[in-house]
Amino acid sequence: MPKFIFSNIIGSFVFNDNYKLVDGLLFKDTGQFKDKKTYEDKLMQKHNDLETPTDEDLYNILMFFKDKKYYSQFYKRNLEITKNSIKGSVNNDGLIIQTINGIGEIEKTMNLLTKRLREWYSLYNPEISNRIDDHEKFVSAIIKSSKKQLLKELNIDENALMGAELKDKDVSAILLLATQINNFYKLKKHYEDYLKELEKETCPNFAVVGGVTIAAKLISHAGSLKRLTEMPASTIQILGAEKALFRHMRNKKRNLPPKFGIIHEHQLIQKSGEKMYGKAARALADKLSIAVKIDYFKGKFIGDKLKKGLMEKFKIQY
Amino acid sequence: MPKFIFSNIIGSFVFNDNYKLVDGLLFKDTGQFKDKKTYEDKLMQKHNDLETPTDEDLYNILMFFKDKKYYSQFYKRNLEITKNSIKGSVNNDGLIIQTINGIGEIEKTMNLLTKRLREWYSLYNPEISNRIDDHEKFVSAIIKSSKKQLLKELNIDENALMGAELKDKDVSAILLLATQINNFYKLKKHYEDYLKELEKETCPNFAVVGGVTIAAKLISHAGSLKRLTEMPASTIQILGAEKALFRHMRNKKRNLPPKFGIIHEHQLIQKSGEKMYGKAARALADKLSIAVKIDYFKGKFIGDKLKKGLMEKFKIQY
Repeated sequence: MPKFIFSNIIGSFVFNDNYKLVDGLLFKDTGQFKDKKTYEDKLMQKHNDLETPTDEDLYNILMFFKDKKYYSQFYKRNLEITKNSIKGSVNNDGLIIQTINGIGEIEKTMNLLTKRLREWYSLYNPEISNRIDDHEKFVSAIIKSSKKQLLKELNIDENALMGAELKDKDVSAILLLATQINNFYKLKKHYEDYLKELEKETCPNFAVVGGVTIAAKLISHAGSLKRLTEMPASTIQILGAEKALFRHMRNKKRNLPPKFGIIHEHQLIQKSGEKMYGKAARALADKLSIAVKIDYFKGKFIGDKLKKGLMEKFKIQY
Repeated sequence: MPKFIFSNIIGSFVFNDNYKLVDGLLFKDTGQFKDKKTYEDKLMQKHNDLETPTDEDLYNILMFFKDKKYYSQFYKRNLEITKNSIKGSVNNDGLIIQTINGIGEIEKTMNLLTKRLREWYSLYNPEISNRIDDHEKFVSAIIKSSKKQLLKELNIDENALMGAELKDKDVSAILLLATQINNFYKLKKHYEDYLKELEKETCPNFAVVGGVTIAAKLISHAGSLKRLTEMPASTIQILGAEKALFRHMRNKKRNLPPKFGIIHEHQLIQKSGEKMYGKAARALADKLSIAVKIDYFKGKFIGDKLKKGLMEKFKIQY
């Protein structure tokens, strides 16, 4: 006699009291699993007095599905569900994390390559490198102006020059590297604008209070916006200073706890006197913690108010 | 009475026996110093019986030039000479060193950025990254083909996809990084060709025996072609394995001496069995040591003969 009704991701089934299959409806896709109630109702109309299995019954019913025929269907459906849920899990958070890390790596790259460029170019024109300290300006200057022009611009006597006269192909090899580095400067700017846009959509309050870069670094460090909402303000405050924190925990007498981590780059901290560091960092982390929660739960935009309050409290112009 | 004749980089001078200046001709530039004989002859025709000062006389004569008027001229001329000699010291060695180090840094950069690209792109299309292991192929594939095309080419069922549907601006942010990396591949190839040309001019024998990259790395490690000529073959053999060498010197029982350094990438070593490593490395270093000396002293091109001899000795096809 039919007795139990049971549904899983492949269908709804009716079993008798010997746990043999009596009736069933298979789902066509994982979407139908969400409507399992409809299918169960259909079966319950056909068979009377069906009950949901107890734990012990369940064990026997599940044994039934160990059959190869069902097993492969289980595998397929589960894979489908997992893939769909992964698909859904990619959101702006993930893009923000990739972008901020990409920017970091581009910066590292530009530093490395500009050092090489300076050394290489100095074989040809050694007077320039130490007169233009800024990497970006140096790169664009040597692309834009010839050796002669640069010397004239910087008022250097051409006759007192040390640099070698290089062949055209030697100079062009150097300038190709400069052009490549220059493209990286452009790419970095593009990514910074892109990051700003992403944050405007995802976490406008957080981005305004923390600033675009710091906000992105905090999200990247925490792993996601959601995980940031779960952190107390004091954790956000020292995010990125884990080393100093553990040093403090190992030896409390010798090492003070860190006052801030990633947020130390924020203008509120930078412009506060050293005596106010702790106070400013705590206040900033508090507001960040509020902002990130508003953003995650899709609240209103009050980022500018939060920031204004902070800045006025610490008497910092912005 | 005029007695001594003396020349230095500012001019030719006649002194009397009280070491007072009697006559003199100033040079207009450092070039005239090379023709000092002509100027001395002129003075000798004017004054009879001039002699070159002894060491003691010289001391008194030099004191005369401590005068401020001459001192600043000395300074200017010396600076000019130094600058000219630095100018002359920049040769292909220096360019080879910059180029090979540039290539190394570009490789490092490409690795770093391609890892980022793979992670970033996988948010969008996760099935591709692990199917194309080669970095260069991966980069050009995602630039060339759209997500759909790639999936079709690799026979991947589009319906089972996990990747998120990204907006155009998100995809273009990813592809901008790919384009930049692709440009680096082009730049690296250009530098490799350029390096080949430089070595053909500077060290054709050395380049053929060692191969373009290894030759450049050896020059860079030694500092110049000249310093390579001064090294015994056994030093060239382990150049780049200094760490292992010092480890061996500290504890001879525990650590064997290194068999090779930079040259381990050479096909002669790579294709020799492990038992022949030491023998092959010694033979290669010998030939490299010969080749670099021929190149430095502008000898004939016998690089192909040297290489052929080596390869035949170890029965390696090339």
